Amino acid sequence: MKTYKELYTIIEQQIKSLNYNNEPRELYDPITYMLSLGGKRLRPVLVLMASDLFGVDIKKSIQAALAVEVFHNFTLVHDDIMDNADIRRGMPTVHKKWNQTVAILSGDLMMIKAIDLLCETETLNLKKLIAVFNKAGAEVCEGQQIDMNFESRNDVSVKEYIEMITLKTAVLLGASLQLGAVIADANNADEKHIYEFGKNIGIAFQIQDDILDSFGEGDKVGKKIGGDIATNKKTLLYLKALELSNASTRSTLENLYQFKHENTDTKILSVISIFKELNVLDEAEKLKQYYLAEAFSHLNQIKVEAIKKEILQNTAVELMQRMS
Amino acid sequence: MKTYKELYTIIEQQIKSLNYNNEPRELYDPITYMLSLGGKRLRPVLVLMASDLFGVDIKKSIQAALAVEVFHNFTLVHDDIMDNADIRRGMPTVHKKWNQTVAILSGDLMMIKAIDLLCETETLNLKKLIAVFNKAGAEVCEGQQIDMNFESRNDVSVKEYIEMITLKTAVLLGASLQLGAVIADANNADEKHIYEFGKNIGIAFQIQDDILDSFGEGDKVGKKIGGDIATNKKTLLYLKALELSNASTRSTLENLYQFKHENTDTKILSVISIFKELNVLDEAEKLKQYYLAEAFSHLNQIKVEAIKKEILQNTAVELMQRMS
Repeated sequence: MKTYKELYTIIEQQIKSLNYNNEPRELYDPITYMLSLGGKRLRPVLVLMASDLFGVDIKKSIQAALAVEVFHNFTLVHDDIMDNADIRRGMPTVHKKWNQTVAILSGDLMMIKAIDLLCETETLNLKKLIAVFNKAGAEVCEGQQIDMNFESRNDVSVKEYIEMITLKTAVLLGASLQLGAVIADANNADEKHIYEFGKNIGIAFQIQDDILDSFGEGDKVGKKIGGDIATNKKTLLYLKALELSNASTRSTLENLYQFKHENTDTKILSVISIFKELNVLDEAEKLKQYYLAEAFSHLNQIKVEAIKKEILQNTAVELMQRMS
Repeated sequence: MKTYKELYTIIEQQIKSLNYNNEPRELYDPITYMLSLGGKRLRPVLVLMASDLFGVDIKKSIQAALAVEVFHNFTLVHDDIMDNADIRRGMPTVHKKWNQTVAILSGDLMMIKAIDLLCETETLNLKKLIAVFNKAGAEVCEGQQIDMNFESRNDVSVKEYIEMITLKTAVLLGASLQLGAVIADANNADEKHIYEFGKNIGIAFQIQDDILDSFGEGDKVGKKIGGDIATNKKTLLYLKALELSNASTRSTLENLYQFKHENTDTKILSVISIFKELNVLDEAEKLKQYYLAEAFSHLNQIKVEAIKKEILQNTAVELMQRMS
């Protein structure tokens, strides 16, 4: 079994060898640009990891892994337009560096190129591979739309929030692992379990992300504390706080989230102080642990020697620790 | 062989039976909305026509035909954002009726759903089917980007213009026919010829479209004369005129295209008068006839009884006449 680091190195090499030097340059350069911005390459690594787990040469899964990474970057390019984001991984977003037309079109092209890469996979089960890929792809779009809808809603429940993050971020982690399993011809039960492992880990990751925005150590997390609060993002902590607060605290919290306050630091401190008062961190931690337990329960049920599964378990734990 | 009208009726029925009643509604309703706006359904009809020509039951090609229509509508939704268009087939565009986020995301989803439909095709050659589809898909994106680039360029040649319309509109007509041929297991030479037939017909259609903007009968064409001129669109006629004009006429023409004039009617009359003076209509007609001849030459080379090919020839001629 190869480690995360080994697989990451393979993915990095493969990404560098992708050749999008076609014309018109405005359309193809953003693909190379986005892929050069780096990142954990979690999704493509998961594709390879699942293939490795089920005993197939990871070479067979490289194209599918790249497909997932290109697809993921396509969603980032379009999301950045919708979120009006200027910066991605410390660099200008595509619609800022070029313009909105380029961002829409090169995003569209990346989606097409992702399917092209997926189709390069040597498999007798291309139809299933695409079905897994497209199901997650459609769900990512659904999750993003639901997230957008949340912005103008004041009655979002924790349950709805979990559904949203499941669609927007978790299913693609599950699908990445599932693709690796399909290529390795794993049996249906194992395929299902590895998908559920990835999905539940993904939910736990997102909860962790929400927690760190309010309770992380800024330097370690690599971004400023309270970014979600400053932009009125309805995170799990905020929704839990609303759920647990009395009428007066609820009203204070809702008022703080009414406007994008100019004096953001004061706002962030006030909100975090309410979060502490209501002990939402404990609640969020409990929920995170629930999804982690779900994930590991599915991992346990996979019919593969325990020693081989350790790498997946360790990866999940390490990523969670690296985030904290 | 089934007629255009018969195939059109089948496509209309099939489109009505597509079910996009999922959640969130903002994401799925625009698909149903766009598909309900009608149109000639030229691309899906061509898929069926090619299958019919090569002797396979058109039922086998319905899903691929729908895939092409959904893909085409995805490009329209995104193009309308880029073109800042308010109206599509007399109805509000998706980004006007909903908003830009919905238009980007539902467009993305339509692209995914198009691939899903394509994958429902019963074929041993799914990989090839997707390759044909995606090649045209990527080229449509390229064509749209090149068209966008033309807006800020003053040195576009007629050759570049033909390349642009080939990518932006013609290749998808060729690919539609090719998909029908692939599903019917046509031989490679015939597949190539039917693609070239569609591509060249597509170029001729677009030239006809450019001609009608200046020289059509407004009522018959269904849109106001001079729309392209009013919006400074660099059509074939405009580029031909620049090519044929002396320094003084060139300067007049370029000045007329410098601003979106408030007094549009005067501008349109002035431009058309220059077009007449330079006889660009004849030049455009010659070019159109060239591509029509190319198209029919490829059609002739297809190894199928002549009588069967007549329906494709007649369809092309009728569509061209209906436009004029």
